[in-house]
Amino acid sequence: MSKTPLVSIVMGSDSDLSVMEPAADILQQFNIPVELTIVSAHRTPHRLIDFATTAQARGIKVIIAGAGGAAHLPGMIASITTLPVIGVPIKSSNSIDGWDSVLSILQMPNGVPVATVALNAARNAGILAAQIIGTYSKETNAAIHVYKTLLKEDVIEKVETLKTKFPNGYDKR
Amino acid sequence: MSKTPLVSIVMGSDSDLSVMEPAADILQQFNIPVELTIVSAHRTPHRLIDFATTAQARGIKVIIAGAGGAAHLPGMIASITTLPVIGVPIKSSNSIDGWDSVLSILQMPNGVPVATVALNAARNAGILAAQIIGTYSKETNAAIHVYKTLLKEDVIEKVETLKTKFPNGYDKR
Amino acid sequence: MSKTPLVSIVMGSDSDLSVMEPAADILQQFNIPVELTIVSAHRTPHRLIDFATTAQARGIKVIIAGAGGAAHLPGMIASITTLPVIGVPIKSSNSIDGWDSVLSILQMPNGVPVATVALNAARNAGILAAQIIGTYSKETNAAIHVYKTLLKEDVIEKVETLKTKFPNGYDKR
Amino acid sequence: MSKTPLVSIVMGSDSDLSVMEPAADILQQFNIPVELTIVSAHRTPHRLIDFATTAQARGIKVIIAGAGGAAHLPGMIASITTLPVIGVPIKSSNSIDGWDSVLSILQMPNGVPVATVALNAARNAGILAAQIIGTYSKETNAAIHVYKTLLKEDVIEKVETLKTKFPNGYDKR
Amino acid sequence: MSKTPLVSIVMGSDSDLSVMEPAADILQQFNIPVELTIVSAHRTPHRLIDFATTAQARGIKVIIAGAGGAAHLPGMIASITTLPVIGVPIKSSNSIDGWDSVLSILQMPNGVPVATVALNAARNAGILAAQIIGTYSKETNAAIHVYKTLLKEDVIEKVETLKTKFPNGYDKR
Amino acid sequence: MSKTPLVSIVMGSDSDLSVMEPAADILQQFNIPVELTIVSAHRTPHRLIDFATTAQARGIKVIIAGAGGAAHLPGMIASITTLPVIGVPIKSSNSIDGWDSVLSILQMPNGVPVATVALNAARNAGILAAQIIGTYSKETNAAIHVYKTLLKEDVIEKVETLKTKFPNGYDKR
Amino acid sequence: MSKTPLVSIVMGSDSDLSVMEPAADILQQFNIPVELTIVSAHRTPHRLIDFATTAQARGIKVIIAGAGGAAHLPGMIASITTLPVIGVPIKSSNSIDGWDSVLSILQMPNGVPVATVALNAARNAGILAAQIIGTYSKETNAAIHVYKTLLKEDVIEKVETLKTKFPNGYDKR
Amino acid sequence: MSKTPLVSIVMGSDSDLSVMEPAADILQQFNIPVELTIVSAHRTPHRLIDFATTAQARGIKVIIAGAGGAAHLPGMIASITTLPVIGVPIKSSNSIDGWDSVLSILQMPNGVPVATVALNAARNAGILAAQIIGTYSKETNAAIHVYKTLLKEDVIEKVETLKTKFPNGYDKR
Repeated sequence: MSKTPLVSIVMGSDSDLSVMEPAADILQQFNIPVELTIVSAHRTPHRLIDFATTAQARGIKVIIAGAGGAAHLPGMIASITTLPVIGVPIKSSNSIDGWDSVLSILQMPNGVPVATVALNAARNAGILAAQIIGTYSKETNAAIHVYKTLLKEDVIEKVETLKTKFPNGYDKR
Repeated sequence: MSKTPLVSIVMGSDSDLSVMEPAADILQQFNIPVELTIVSAHRTPHRLIDFATTAQARGIKVIIAGAGGAAHLPGMIASITTLPVIGVPIKSSNSIDGWDSVLSILQMPNGVPVATVALNAARNAGILAAQIIGTYSKETNAAIHVYKTLLKEDVIEKVETLKTKFPNGYDKR
Repeated sequence: MSKTPLVSIVMGSDSDLSVMEPAADILQQFNIPVELTIVSAHRTPHRLIDFATTAQARGIKVIIAGAGGAAHLPGMIASITTLPVIGVPIKSSNSIDGWDSVLSILQMPNGVPVATVALNAARNAGILAAQIIGTYSKETNAAIHVYKTLLKEDVIEKVETLKTKFPNGYDKR
Repeated sequence: MSKTPLVSIVMGSDSDLSVMEPAADILQQFNIPVELTIVSAHRTPHRLIDFATTAQARGIKVIIAGAGGAAHLPGMIASITTLPVIGVPIKSSNSIDGWDSVLSILQMPNGVPVATVALNAARNAGILAAQIIGTYSKETNAAIHVYKTLLKEDVIEKVETLKTKFPNGYDKR
Repeated sequence: MSKTPLVSIVMGSDSDLSVMEPAADILQQFNIPVELTIVSAHRTPHRLIDFATTAQARGIKVIIAGAGGAAHLPGMIASITTLPVIGVPIKSSNSIDGWDSVLSILQMPNGVPVATVALNAARNAGILAAQIIGTYSKETNAAIHVYKTLLKEDVIEKVETLKTKFPNGYDKR
Repeated sequence: MSKTPLVSIVMGSDSDLSVMEPAADILQQFNIPVELTIVSAHRTPHRLIDFATTAQARGIKVIIAGAGGAAHLPGMIASITTLPVIGVPIKSSNSIDGWDSVLSILQMPNGVPVATVALNAARNAGILAAQIIGTYSKETNAAIHVYKTLLKEDVIEKVETLKTKFPNGYDKR
Repeated sequence: MSKTPLVSIVMGSDSDLSVMEPAADILQQFNIPVELTIVSAHRTPHRLIDFATTAQARGIKVIIAGAGGAAHLPGMIASITTLPVIGVPIKSSNSIDGWDSVLSILQMPNGVPVATVALNAARNAGILAAQIIGTYSKETNAAIHVYKTLLKEDVIEKVETLKTKFPNGYDKR
Repeated sequence: MSKTPLVSIVMGSDSDLSVMEPAADILQQFNIPVELTIVSAHRTPHRLIDFATTAQARGIKVIIAGAGGAAHLPGMIASITTLPVIGVPIKSSNSIDGWDSVLSILQMPNGVPVATVALNAARNAGILAAQIIGTYSKETNAAIHVYKTLLKEDVIEKVETLKTKFPNGYDKR
């Protein structure tokens, strides 16, 4: 515990915490130390600059940034750091069905990519961060292999449950 | 000329110049001195910070910022300055029909507004900047009154042209 | 109190009152006197003409107009007055997810801008109005500086709360 | 010729003339006298009021109004007159793929309908105006019956042409 | 009462009844006799043909048709009758946010218009039908004038209520 | 019972079961034996390959596949089998209003069609599967004829109910 | 040649011929006799009824219907026949980027499915028709197996071409 | 050259080559060996399985997959490998304005992320791949630092060019 974090998870507001926590949870499951804090692109721009400028030197390998509406946090962090930045579009209350969040994170200009995941998909952002770390960490890569097997087994288990429910093929009569 | 500019017109790339120049042109027509330069939120974030931090002290009253795609320039300037910021969504080549440009400028969070105008509507951004200056400058306000009269007269002239074209009511037989 | 209002806040129906009141509240917080009334573009077109024609003479500096659906109120006011008009697209019950409100306010033709803010973002409309008045009023500009500092401090406070919650970095085990 | 017009066709700008003329052409084909002129909601709001206020007294039975972008012309005319107003959304150069034109004409509030037709469908607006006049004019109703027969015959003719092209069923080998 | 109906209101299913009844209610308010029934384009195509073929001979002047999803009812009726057809897009449970309903009613091809009103706007469909009948019925036209006055007075009353609520201008302190 | 199934109904997760069961129910009503199971394109890709490769040999005639979000299940099955594949876009919790589900099933490339039905329309998928089997099975074709008659009679019954409700035409006074 | 057609390909207008012919071409390649004609839902509704009513008796097994804009042809045919109907949404000149065509074909109500393929994907409609016939015709099923192999070989060939182009891995220096 | 590739760039068809080559070009500029080939999810599903299953063992660290329309390639690769997969949505000819490409790549379900970049943004996909490799390769990380500096200098150069063009502030008179 309290090892140097490898992944930094940031969000614009504490109202996004419940959406973003699954990123931290899955990374813990993969034994990857994380930090989790608030950085607002629009309310604390200088904090954003500081955060993005110093992240790599602090040992961070991947940054996960979640934001909604005109979501500038992931892109602005990516404009400063050379670390890979994963953007999580959040369908917040001030969003138009999530379209604004998705487009303002995804459609970054030439030279400054943000690795965008699905709307509200913080867990997937965590898995993607682990996959990135897994490119050099055998331990993490092995953990992801295990995780993928669990995903598969979970489906197979449901297949069996369904079979038990409908032993003679689907027949409700 | 070369009076201290009151309006600063910025864009992310020189490829946006042809879209943004009408803002400068209409402001010149209103005798309002302008500056026009390039500030890229994603390629020169520190220049953006400097620009937005010093604008008011340099005498700027209104900032017009044009950007396309995941357009963060207007919003990030607005996060730093207390000046009114007018955003021009640009339908650039890397935009999805302009929707990304519009939404990533318009949908700013609580506390940090951007005065958004129509897609590619740099001329209207210039007029809006003049209207803002016109709230305290009688000269500018008078110039806008004249402009509105010209708009009206232009329509009336076209009405007359149409009448000449169809003297007996519309009848092509 | 009851000083001459500088900002006029209008909406098409009293059903929009709860959405629009934050504009008035934030302007009061900035010590800017406001008026707030109902003007329907479609039900009281002559009242709209009267309102827009006389606003400047009554001392109004900025007009904030909120409307939903085929939202014509902000644009029609802007067609008459030379004052800056801020449009608030409202996601009313007769709106298609807010898209109609946004597009019918934002996409004004050449010559007649409306300063559009985010969907339902009346508070931001109020801040923008204050920023416009702040271009000539030092007192108001100072108030906005204070407000921006409060925005920042509010975030910093939440950062600290989060730190207390996760003292050893994020670790739920 | 130059009989009192029954249908008034208006548009915001002469740049919309080529889109709107088919409305006049089809009405002429139905022997319904029309007038065609320019009324800009945003550039000539008082002309709009005058036009809409006096239309019925001048003998007009139906108004066709075409507009693009934040298209307020049809709705504002409908706010004043009790005549049926047909709106033609125009995909003008300042439109976002026509969505703004469609939504800002279609989504009128309770009490003030606009009979909206398809994007750029001025000819259909003309037919609809004829159908409305046909509710009381036997001559016009008969003309529409003839027109519908022609539509059908035109299809049947194409069916025959295709049969000639592929006499043995479709077979390109 | 039970006079020959002038307006026929049809819908695809009784589940649309609550959306469509306001069309009948407003027409009754205008003293225009109506009929209201179910015609399904997809479940009773022959009934649709019969309905549309005989409507005019039965004395119907205007048809109002409401439908949701892939909404073919208004357009298919319009393909048969020469009467004006008003289409009401319904945001039914099988609709994608109403977009399918709107587009499949509005975007009719050349030759076959449907007068489309806003999503779920059956009341406006009724008013439009009355306006069409008002092109030849002085009594109906007078009733619509009265209605428009009531709309205006209703707004003015709300203006007064608001004034009473905020006697010294908007001031909550 | 437990005859060899002719239609295989698959979905990506048991959370889609309530949406997909109507496909099985209607096929049972048509006396067509079905199987119903879970195949996840993303969690069990090898199971997907096995399923699609062996389906025809097991006697399956039509495959119905339901999926939501980035819905790859129907298209990937279609890439392997030569059987007709019917895709049901599901508006699952991780979907953006169903648009992603619809587009990622519908927009298949040249050579690999998926027969797409409406959002959540599993019942229609079942009917379509029956219609396909009805191209060679007289019994099934006859069953669909009966079903279509029931659809019609259901509407006619509602017509009568409405008539009873409004015996003198629609009149609420 | 001139064998009894098994698949009927219909479209609303001869302007859709170039989009729809690939459906006929691919079916010929599969040795399935086709007919191809024009049926307009909106201009020839009675022809539509006749066509759909008699198709099965004439030996047709599958109907392919292409249409654009408010595209009612596929759905209306499906309302009458019990044959499977494949709908091809066409991005015609009167379409809003194809959205209207897609939604008005896809979003059919309960009881009346249309098997929708991608925008302008007539070739895929032909393949789907063949797959349906392949459920009972071994010859056709074999032909589709061959076709799928060709699809694969075509890709493999392109893989080889690319290898030749970049023999040492991708390296342009 | 011809060192073991670290990044594999795949696309569904050679028609996507011109869009995808910038990914290879920028990676070469970063001295990262790449391979580039064609893998079609829908035409060569078994090749897809083989490719994704063996990529890691062959030394690949990151996979970039580009696809358009119902774009299943990136997601299906991600379902098999534990490597990070970057998806490039392509606005191909069979795409609806790119929306289908974006949504069918971005909206992946829980457990299987795809790192999505902007529409057609293959260059950014290359940069993101480099950033991922830069998490463990100091040389690559240094190269990206240089690249970011070049991005900045390119903007600064354009700033200077603009200054030369408008030496006295923007003034065209």
